[in-house]
Amino acid sequence: PDTALAARARRRLDTLIKPPGSLGRLEALAATLAAQQGRPEPQVERVHISVFAADHGVCAEAISSVPQAVTAGMVRRFSAGDAAIAVLARQLGAGLEVINLGTLEPLPALPAVVDARLARGTANMRTGPAMDRETVAAALEEGRRAFRRAGDCDLFIGGEMGIGNTTAAAALGGALLGLGSELAGPGTGLDAAGVERKRAVIDQALHRHGPHLASPLEALRRVGGLEIAGLTGAFIAAAQARSPVLVDGFIATVAALTAVRLNPGVRDWLHFGHHSAEPGHTRLLQTLAAEGLLDLGMRLGEGTGAAAAVPLLRMACALYREMATFQEAGFT
Amino acid sequence: PDTALAARARRRLDTLIKPPGSLGRLEALAATLAAQQGRPEPQVERVHISVFAADHGVCAEAISSVPQAVTAGMVRRFSAGDAAIAVLARQLGAGLEVINLGTLEPLPALPAVVDARLARGTANMRTGPAMDRETVAAALEEGRRAFRRAGDCDLFIGGEMGIGNTTAAAALGGALLGLGSELAGPGTGLDAAGVERKRAVIDQALHRHGPHLASPLEALRRVGGLEIAGLTGAFIAAAQARSPVLVDGFIATVAALTAVRLNPGVRDWLHFGHHSAEPGHTRLLQTLAAEGLLDLGMRLGEGTGAAAAVPLLRMACALYREMATFQEAGFT
Repeated sequence: PDTALAARARRRLDTLIKPPGSLGRLEALAATLAAQQGRPEPQVERVHISVFAADHGVCAEAISSVPQAVTAGMVRRFSAGDAAIAVLARQLGAGLEVINLGTLEPLPALPAVVDARLARGTANMRTGPAMDRETVAAALEEGRRAFRRAGDCDLFIGGEMGIGNTTAAAALGGALLGLGSELAGPGTGLDAAGVERKRAVIDQALHRHGPHLASPLEALRRVGGLEIAGLTGAFIAAAQARSPVLVDGFIATVAALTAVRLNPGVRDWLHFGHHSAEPGHTRLLQTLAAEGLLDLGMRLGEGTGAAAAVPLLRMACALYREMATFQEAGFT
Repeated sequence: PDTALAARARRRLDTLIKPPGSLGRLEALAATLAAQQGRPEPQVERVHISVFAADHGVCAEAISSVPQAVTAGMVRRFSAGDAAIAVLARQLGAGLEVINLGTLEPLPALPAVVDARLARGTANMRTGPAMDRETVAAALEEGRRAFRRAGDCDLFIGGEMGIGNTTAAAALGGALLGLGSELAGPGTGLDAAGVERKRAVIDQALHRHGPHLASPLEALRRVGGLEIAGLTGAFIAAAQARSPVLVDGFIATVAALTAVRLNPGVRDWLHFGHHSAEPGHTRLLQTLAAEGLLDLGMRLGEGTGAAAAVPLLRMACALYREMATFQEAGFT
């Protein structure tokens, strides 16, 4: 980001007809967006949402109460326009593309869905690596491609869908932070016994892959997921293209952390849409020195927590661009 | 509100293609709006913002670092469209009307400004009542009229502008809660010594008016303000018309509390846009068993903290209306 533009934006914000700082975090948002976009007048008109979908072999361990067929079923609903993220994309006038990186079952050609199926879901991380080297590389590349297809957007959002992916995200986050299974939570709705089972599976997987997990790329390959790798690749590509990114909740934040571990410069391009109700999200945000814009108890994924925050970015930009200065208002 | 409609809405929310409760507070918002609007499909398309402006005699006590002329100056900017609330109203496609209930100096006719000047600001609450009985009654009535002019809106927002009005609001809130000056804070930007002075003035005013403050109407008259009375009247009128209200920050919440004390049924029609950075707001929200939707460190007033939350209400309604049910999606 252009730090000179950020400083200039902060100076301009102090000349607008309001007490200094009285727009709170909207002021920092406007200044950061100006610096990221490299233009004196930031804007968030063109928003693109890429939703990555894939299944998870660790579902064999009964870590989710929801059948894996729901992953492909939800891809159909994203395409049909009646799933939550599709409703929000329409409300925002945002572009929405779904990238199928590996549902268990193949899907027919569907509007707004890119068939990039690399596998029938991942392998079970408890008994071996979730992906082989070629597959994780291909998933990262599909993420980069998805960002490139987003074109010249003002803001990029990555969403995800994959039954079992809070287990993969908790394992990957635990690996990156040198923890055990502490990040595991109820996900879609496990009860306390289910969370205990999930934690045991994650601890076994982390133990099995042991020292290999010191490498973020190996951690992603061994305990991550296809859609998490897609998000990671997209976030890195966005940062390299100097595009601001609005990160969603627990799973997207694990992908963002993976991207930052692979390329620390990525951090400067990230905003965080919300603080998820999934308990492990708090620790992840702390690690990234990040704060969600919203805290509404959401825990749906798909990119919905980021999409819900888009109007705040738009309002921050509009205030920055359209408010009078004290001088213009004759208040000198 | 129609509790049967709320219950029906909650049941529908649990049939939508998402884990139950995973949209967090957006779910309760949709159900509450359905119940308030008395229709099965809530919507927040037509939003009206009434900004009440007036000056404060207590400024003679040097409780603000900003000259009183800024109140009228800001009314001009609201009309010109380059103050924060005007920018946000435009961004939202919301109607905006300013009601001048008593700037110190008269203003010429201005677009979108209703000249309803009842006085040259209030009198100094430290040395006597801020308003006489006729004036507070007239200000309440102007609030009711402003709501009626808003017409058939889906959501009503009340904003305010008045140099010195955090002092009046802190005094009125203190009177309603049986406190002293604990609700006083920096407002537009007082330093610690300024806040001490403000607290001393409030304590003196509360002491002077003593037992009269047990009546909420008398408290409003003696230590409130013209624009606070306007907001109070508008909130009562909105509730009586069964219209949802989105309350802004510290001053608007004191007006909402006054309205609730005058008519407890008002509470059921209120949403709270944000948690202000003005410290006393926390106690006020607790008293009303309310939680702001946003918590972004804003402290500008004008209605901006409510306006910033409008897209969340719109998204809650869109999700409620447009998401598929499990049955429609063939997930049964």
